[in-house]
Amino acid sequence: PTPQAILDNKSRQKRVKINVGGEKHEILWENLGKQPDTRLGQLKNARSHEEILELCEDYSLEDNEYFFDRQPKAFAIILNLYRTSKLHLAEEICVVEFLDELEYWGVDEHQLDPCCQLKLQQRRDQINDDVKKDSELLFIVGEDEFGDSNLDKIKKHIWDLFEKSLTLPQRITGFLSLFFILLSVLTLSLSTVPDLQELGCKSTNQSACVYAVAQTQNMTMTEAADAYPEELEVKEHYVLDELEIVCIVWFTLEYLLRMFAAPNKPKFFRGWLNTIDLIAILPFYVSLFLVHFDTAGRVLQVLRVIRILRIFKLARHSTGLQSLGFTLRHSYQNLGVLLLFIAVGVIIFSALAYFAERDDNSRNFESIPHSFYWALITMTTVGYGDIVPTTIIGKIISMVAGVCGLVVIALPVGIISNNFQLFYEEQKRKEKAFKRRKEMEKF
Amino acid sequence: PTPQAILDNKSRQKRVKINVGGEKHEILWENLGKQPDTRLGQLKNARSHEEILELCEDYSLEDNEYFFDRQPKAFAIILNLYRTSKLHLAEEICVVEFLDELEYWGVDEHQLDPCCQLKLQQRRDQINDDVKKDSELLFIVGEDEFGDSNLDKIKKHIWDLFEKSLTLPQRITGFLSLFFILLSVLTLSLSTVPDLQELGCKSTNQSACVYAVAQTQNMTMTEAADAYPEELEVKEHYVLDELEIVCIVWFTLEYLLRMFAAPNKPKFFRGWLNTIDLIAILPFYVSLFLVHFDTAGRVLQVLRVIRILRIFKLARHSTGLQSLGFTLRHSYQNLGVLLLFIAVGVIIFSALAYFAERDDNSRNFESIPHSFYWALITMTTVGYGDIVPTTIIGKIISMVAGVCGLVVIALPVGIISNNFQLFYEEQKRKEKAFKRRKEMEKF
Amino acid sequence: PTPQAILDNKSRQKRVKINVGGEKHEILWENLGKQPDTRLGQLKNARSHEEILELCEDYSLEDNEYFFDRQPKAFAIILNLYRTSKLHLAEEICVVEFLDELEYWGVDEHQLDPCCQLKLQQRRDQINDDVKKDSELLFIVGEDEFGDSNLDKIKKHIWDLFEKSLTLPQRITGFLSLFFILLSVLTLSLSTVPDLQELGCKSTNQSACVYAVAQTQNMTMTEAADAYPEELEVKEHYVLDELEIVCIVWFTLEYLLRMFAAPNKPKFFRGWLNTIDLIAILPFYVSLFLVHFDTAGRVLQVLRVIRILRIFKLARHSTGLQSLGFTLRHSYQNLGVLLLFIAVGVIIFSALAYFAERDDNSRNFESIPHSFYWALITMTTVGYGDIVPTTIIGKIISMVAGVCGLVVIALPVGIISNNFQLFYEEQKRKEKAFKRRKEMEKF
Amino acid sequence: PTPQAILDNKSRQKRVKINVGGEKHEILWENLGKQPDTRLGQLKNARSHEEILELCEDYSLEDNEYFFDRQPKAFAIILNLYRTSKLHLAEEICVVEFLDELEYWGVDEHQLDPCCQLKLQQRRDQINDDVKKDSELLFIVGEDEFGDSNLDKIKKHIWDLFEKSLTLPQRITGFLSLFFILLSVLTLSLSTVPDLQELGCKSTNQSACVYAVAQTQNMTMTEAADAYPEELEVKEHYVLDELEIVCIVWFTLEYLLRMFAAPNKPKFFRGWLNTIDLIAILPFYVSLFLVHFDTAGRVLQVLRVIRILRIFKLARHSTGLQSLGFTLRHSYQNLGVLLLFIAVGVIIFSALAYFAERDDNSRNFESIPHSFYWALITMTTVGYGDIVPTTIIGKIISMVAGVCGLVVIALPVGIISNNFQLFYEEQKRKEKAFKRRKEMEKF
Ligand SMILES: [K+]
Ligand SMILES: [K+]
Repeated sequence: PTPQAILDNKSRQKRVKINVGGEKHEILWENLGKQPDTRLGQLKNARSHEEILELCEDYSLEDNEYFFDRQPKAFAIILNLYRTSKLHLAEEICVVEFLDELEYWGVDEHQLDPCCQLKLQQRRDQINDDVKKDSELLFIVGEDEFGDSNLDKIKKHIWDLFEKSLTLPQRITGFLSLFFILLSVLTLSLSTVPDLQELGCKSTNQSACVYAVAQTQNMTMTEAADAYPEELEVKEHYVLDELEIVCIVWFTLEYLLRMFAAPNKPKFFRGWLNTIDLIAILPFYVSLFLVHFDTAGRVLQVLRVIRILRIFKLARHSTGLQSLGFTLRHSYQNLGVLLLFIAVGVIIFSALAYFAERDDNSRNFESIPHSFYWALITMTTVGYGDIVPTTIIGKIISMVAGVCGLVVIALPVGIISNNFQLFYEEQKRKEKAFKRRKEMEKF
Repeated sequence: PTPQAILDNKSRQKRVKINVGGEKHEILWENLGKQPDTRLGQLKNARSHEEILELCEDYSLEDNEYFFDRQPKAFAIILNLYRTSKLHLAEEICVVEFLDELEYWGVDEHQLDPCCQLKLQQRRDQINDDVKKDSELLFIVGEDEFGDSNLDKIKKHIWDLFEKSLTLPQRITGFLSLFFILLSVLTLSLSTVPDLQELGCKSTNQSACVYAVAQTQNMTMTEAADAYPEELEVKEHYVLDELEIVCIVWFTLEYLLRMFAAPNKPKFFRGWLNTIDLIAILPFYVSLFLVHFDTAGRVLQVLRVIRILRIFKLARHSTGLQSLGFTLRHSYQNLGVLLLFIAVGVIIFSALAYFAERDDNSRNFESIPHSFYWALITMTTVGYGDIVPTTIIGKIISMVAGVCGLVVIALPVGIISNNFQLFYEEQKRKEKAFKRRKEMEKF
Repeated sequence: PTPQAILDNKSRQKRVKINVGGEKHEILWENLGKQPDTRLGQLKNARSHEEILELCEDYSLEDNEYFFDRQPKAFAIILNLYRTSKLHLAEEICVVEFLDELEYWGVDEHQLDPCCQLKLQQRRDQINDDVKKDSELLFIVGEDEFGDSNLDKIKKHIWDLFEKSLTLPQRITGFLSLFFILLSVLTLSLSTVPDLQELGCKSTNQSACVYAVAQTQNMTMTEAADAYPEELEVKEHYVLDELEIVCIVWFTLEYLLRMFAAPNKPKFFRGWLNTIDLIAILPFYVSLFLVHFDTAGRVLQVLRVIRILRIFKLARHSTGLQSLGFTLRHSYQNLGVLLLFIAVGVIIFSALAYFAERDDNSRNFESIPHSFYWALITMTTVGYGDIVPTTIIGKIISMVAGVCGLVVIALPVGIISNNFQLFYEEQKRKEKAFKRRKEMEKF
Repeated sequence: PTPQAILDNKSRQKRVKINVGGEKHEILWENLGKQPDTRLGQLKNARSHEEILELCEDYSLEDNEYFFDRQPKAFAIILNLYRTSKLHLAEEICVVEFLDELEYWGVDEHQLDPCCQLKLQQRRDQINDDVKKDSELLFIVGEDEFGDSNLDKIKKHIWDLFEKSLTLPQRITGFLSLFFILLSVLTLSLSTVPDLQELGCKSTNQSACVYAVAQTQNMTMTEAADAYPEELEVKEHYVLDELEIVCIVWFTLEYLLRMFAAPNKPKFFRGWLNTIDLIAILPFYVSLFLVHFDTAGRVLQVLRVIRILRIFKLARHSTGLQSLGFTLRHSYQNLGVLLLFIAVGVIIFSALAYFAERDDNSRNFESIPHSFYWALITMTTVGYGDIVPTTIIGKIISMVAGVCGLVVIALPVGIISNNFQLFYEEQKRKEKAFKRRKEMEKF
């Protein structure tokens, strides 16, 4: 039709039919003019056949109808903008889809009413977070690519042996791994029990040692060690010592094999589970080296303590521990807030208690830093009772500290707890899906 | 119409009307071609009258309209896939229904946009869980089927007597059952109170006993028992002893009758409420048997302690306790996580504290296993204060342990608490529905 | 039209148009026959003009259209039942409305799919609960009706004086009421402080008292009271005594005036706030009466203690306390569960601890009932530390008790806490609405 | 058309078509008459062309159709009111939008069904709250307006230096500010450690001081200070003293510069972050002044304690602390409820415990106010154990107090915790949005 016909038609009609995907909407022409920059506003001002077809898919002047091949639901919402100049969100439409439609119709998202503006942003953030978390979780349980060479096939076998638990050998390996972790921790714990300790030679001079042992026949082990500090020492039982070596051998073997078979070395070294594995074996070898230095006593002690961190190797076998790690790393801001709240509380209450108690109770509240312990033990409601206030003011401060502790610690812990819940359920769901996929692959 | 007419018609028209249950959608023919494997894609390529009628219920070439007798709401969403190649979920449609529709239209569920993919899976899991839980709860409160013989009628009467509380006799039985549970627990508790104990004969030699009693006239009961360890012992009061026997008689009777009347024996023996009933009476009979052996003293003690487990018989009378049991059994993974977290925390902190304190405070932190107690009492924030650190490092460790305890225990407890809440409300609702049904049956 | 015309028309047409409130649905006639008992099933089988008009509002054989004047949204869902034999709930429709529509269309609600069955029941329960709670809350903040006589007007003035806080006199009364509650509690607290006590005459024999006072010049008050137990006693300071009487006078006056002015006497006596008011004054008058009996010493003590319950009079001035009361009364089942859990835990752990500790630590774990205190103090994580286990088994039991306490107490407290939150917010909202209405009435 | 034609038409037709934005609804004329005050009710009674056009945009008697240029979705819901006399809310429509539509159609919102009435009010309150909170948060992170003069430009530079962290100088300033806060708190803490204190001159008489020092050569610092109380005192180390002065100089400078540069002075003085800054420096200057008065010892002590409040200056650098402050100020009602609950509990339990324990344990439970400490330490589950009940009744009371403490404190803390969570997430979101905007401005 000629531009004139179009103009005539438009001016003759009060209303216009907008056919969106088969759903026919009617609206006054003048209302469309209220938003001139949008697609429909442009339609109102379009004067030629070409202009119109650029805006819509099809139209008919006789029916006074313009056809758009888009989804009708979101459009129904958007059309209200022309009528009431207000744009509200509908619960039912996925926010991503809605934004796509807004773009098509040339409507700016800032025209949303304030009450829905907030909602839009929240839901968009939510979706972005979900997708991001999703990809990270996939990274953890994700599939690894191996090459096709023979060596690669062996590598894949070794890798699957330690990573999966579908076949019997894989399950046995998993069980052994778990067994040695528990054995190792048990060994360390038992090695400190006095009844399981024995008297050993400290000096390299064997005869001096034998002489010393002979001299201390009627003493307890500790007395003997004290009597001949140069020659004798109280050691862990030799069986525990040997068990420890067995564990270390397994851990070392496991780590080396895994490192050798890892399809993606950088990812292997970045993985925190592997870092824990390394921490579990390194101290032993460092001790072996350091034992030749006389002055390394203190360091050896520390290395011995570090052995306890092997317990974190359990994370490889427990979704719960992995979720804990995941939560802590992703809630580091919330953990920071928790520590900050606690720190602020501890500093304030220990300072107040110190000033209140220092005259009457200076042995317990010796200085502000000494009072930190009391303040934290009170705020966490542990309340050992080894340090208690004795003055009225001190008692009032400890009452306030107790209540503040309850309130202030509950706040960030609530957030962290929520995060953990989400991660844990997500992880469980992913694992289930992954396992289902794996089992289908087996057949 | 001839295939030629169909082809002509299709090529003449730019758009097509899809009538789904009366709702008319319009879309460009070319858009339908984007998804050739789906029902609508096949429609585009259909060439004969028969082919078309296999895909839709009815059509008319003049109106250019194809009729499908399906629900229009889900279709509106699915149609967008052809326009934007994106498929989003709508909040308003039940996910089970939506999947049915996807299948009808030949659309794969994996074509959902990532943002909605997650939602779909969550809701489907949710529904599956709900349905599964539902059926389990029904199992507990469910109806039992009895036969029609006279014996079966008696059995049904006995069974209802113990299981329901609709008629007066049933209520009385319920009350008696509750009364004897409480009486039994009270008896056990009171039997340990020194003021309610009495001096009794241990030896079977009566005259020796009488003599011993005569000799210990001015002593306390404990002294007397110590003076004549062979002849005398401090026993619970004979009234308590008799009450205990009355309770046992009732419990035995109840159990036997219930076992006799149970309509479904395997289910009866699998039920954990019945297992508790058995545990409540067995120790008594085992003791009766064991008392003839001199060396059974230790075992008798243990059997005596087990009597306290009768308190769990209360579960039959309390929805709360049943929900607790239900929650614990269904949250066993979460409980495992809780125990694992606690175990890891306890082992780490007790090891650290042991190494920090062993020189200055070796009496309290004797070894790592001995320090477990301190670590757990600190992490649960009980904090008795009987074992406290004395070194600076030890104090810092106990501060960290307290904070970690708060955080780490809060995480799984939050999940378990949510589970409990859901179970408990569900159970309450079910019970209400069940009771309503029962009461309607009475009339 | 004749029945024949109707039948002909039906058999000629494959589909039928159902016009529900202007929305036209199309469906195959045969599908309607699947549910013959419903309104549409009956429509299929209707044979005469009259029958049809009984089922729908209007119809036209030419258009093959039947008109129903109902809402189209719920119908769209219901129509699916004919197509797929499945009925699903839509999120968007209020459940009450949906049930109304189901009834109109003659569809039984049990035809809902299991996945939506649950949802329906939950939402219906929810709505019923909300409405019930609502009416109860209205009862509390609700309006009272007074008559029109002069006496009634005075009564209304007095009533408003104590119940509302819109005008200045009303606010002053409210402030005075609050002031006297706090004063009364303060008086009771201070009267127990030794420094604020004084020596008073116990005997009615004045001269004996004066003599006794003279003899005890150099003693402390307690010593004096002990030396002349018949004549002297340590009393609260006379000023506190007088303040107490002032408070009692106010409370009595307030109660009598409120009772006199109450528009609804039964409601007045049923109200628990008024019962608290009564409890706050009764003990005083009972003491006045009992003081003439020599043997009433013990009862007088108890009456004195009961005075502390006056603090609950604060509930009249605090939404928080009212919500607490409301929560406790409506969560009595949950409180019962909490107490039951605690009771079960306490009994089990105290029995176990008693048997574990009685040989080594019989002074602390003297009997099971004596151990209740230890068990509860451990389970609530208060952990005073005055009673601690000394044996290994006892320590393990207390560790388990601590963890169980944390878990088991968290479960019902979570539910109660949620209830409180709901009540409190509801109450706040109601109060705001009520206040707004009141303030509008003033103008 | 003439009024007669309109009337004729209306009486001829049983139904009417209501075209709302293209969606055609049909309804019986008589149903429209049920709500005569609404727009549609008036339409039914409208008799002339003009009257009708006042109510709707367009109409056609032939089609029996009336056109309204409004959104169809809300109308579908509203139309049900005419059919069933019930008005229900739809989940999917924004409540603000729905109210607008209700107004247009002349329907009163009180005609909503009770089940939806509640929902409406909740959602409206929610939206109002959200918008209000939003504007307050904007106030905090909001933009400040500066003039265009040169001085204003300098001011803006200074202001940005302290308020923002986009450029390097701004980051350095922020880091310095943080550093001095921590240094200051550290200084105060360390100054109380005995090992870091030194003996200083108290008297202005130098020679007396020197003499005193000479005399006390072999004494500890404390002994020396005690021996010559007029001349000597134990002071903080002079380095700490100097560090404190450096911090004060920085804080003063910062405060003055910020005050000078503040674009909006009233807002500056109202801001609580700035008040904290003032509190952080004032005590020092007041001490400087007061030190000249001999009798100011006590006040000086208090001023020294107040220095610890500087830790709150951290709030400027931590979203968490700001959210805490924000939460506490907006949850003041909930905090009030918490304190009230605690106060009521403390008063009741301390009174009960006092009456139970005063005879056997009067040293610990000396009076009701003295027992407050015990009651609160029990209710918060801190449980130091320095004061424990010894009587049976006292033990029962402390058990009840422990359980009540757990329950009663959990209730308001739950609400406060929820509030904090909302504020914190909101704040984080705002900050992110603000930062994004800022960074876009830089380019
Ligand atoms: K404690
Ligand atoms: K504690």
